[in-house]
Amino acid sequence: MSTINSELKALTTSWEAANKARDVDAILGHYAEDLVAFDAILQLQFKGREVYKAHWKNCLEMCQGPMTFEVHQLQQWGEGDVGFGHFLCHCGGTDNEGNTHNCWMRVTQGYRRIGGQWRIVHDHFSAPFDPESGQALFELQP
Amino acid sequence: MSTINSELKALTTSWEAANKARDVDAILGHYAEDLVAFDAILQLQFKGREVYKAHWKNCLEMCQGPMTFEVHQLQQWGEGDVGFGHFLCHCGGTDNEGNTHNCWMRVTQGYRRIGGQWRIVHDHFSAPFDPESGQALFELQP
Repeated sequence: MSTINSELKALTTSWEAANKARDVDAILGHYAEDLVAFDAILQLQFKGREVYKAHWKNCLEMCQGPMTFEVHQLQQWGEGDVGFGHFLCHCGGTDNEGNTHNCWMRVTQGYRRIGGQWRIVHDHFSAPFDPESGQALFELQP
Repeated sequence: MSTINSELKALTTSWEAANKARDVDAILGHYAEDLVAFDAILQLQFKGREVYKAHWKNCLEMCQGPMTFEVHQLQQWGEGDVGFGHFLCHCGGTDNEGNTHNCWMRVTQGYRRIGGQWRIVHDHFSAPFDPESGQALFELQP
């Protein structure tokens, strides 16, 4: 594995751990200040780290209890100070009765090395939908 | 604008024109053979150009009549042989009575220069959903 690939893999591993720990400051510490995010819910896009942080806090409140947040099928490429990656994310929470509610989401991220540090400058989370019903598809398995 | 940015912009402009023209062969000519696509509908992912081509044909059949397919708010980065970009796509079709049905989708693409040519190796199309109803949100405006 090239040095850049190792660095991008380390960024993703650290970001995944911050998500599992539900640590919003640590999660957002992986992003660039001027990020553009296409998140799975509510809005077309979120611009800037502070706006995205407020949204992420809301998301964690919706998703209570012990967190599932696993990166699968990761592929990443980088050269110089630019890279991107994509993966499937198995994620969800646990309700008050201890039942887990997980699904598979698709995630794509764009990376730039800024001031010597790799940062996520763009991410895109989504679930596909059924074109007949317009319903997001949460039962799909990879 | 750097040479790479001009090349990536040209790739996107050509891909956009192929989409407007509903020309599946021309659209898929912009992709790498071993692409991984996270499309907006039906499946978590599509692997390989032939599989994605069959899916794209189905999509165009669902979306009849004169095509709307416009790239907005494009941002792209590239270095060496690796790049990525994201944009909003205003897209849709026209029904038998001449009524247009358009919406805004989010698109992220990963690029690699293969054999001297920039190719899309990954794309991710989506609409966000409402977390309460699970319905995809087609009325959002940028």
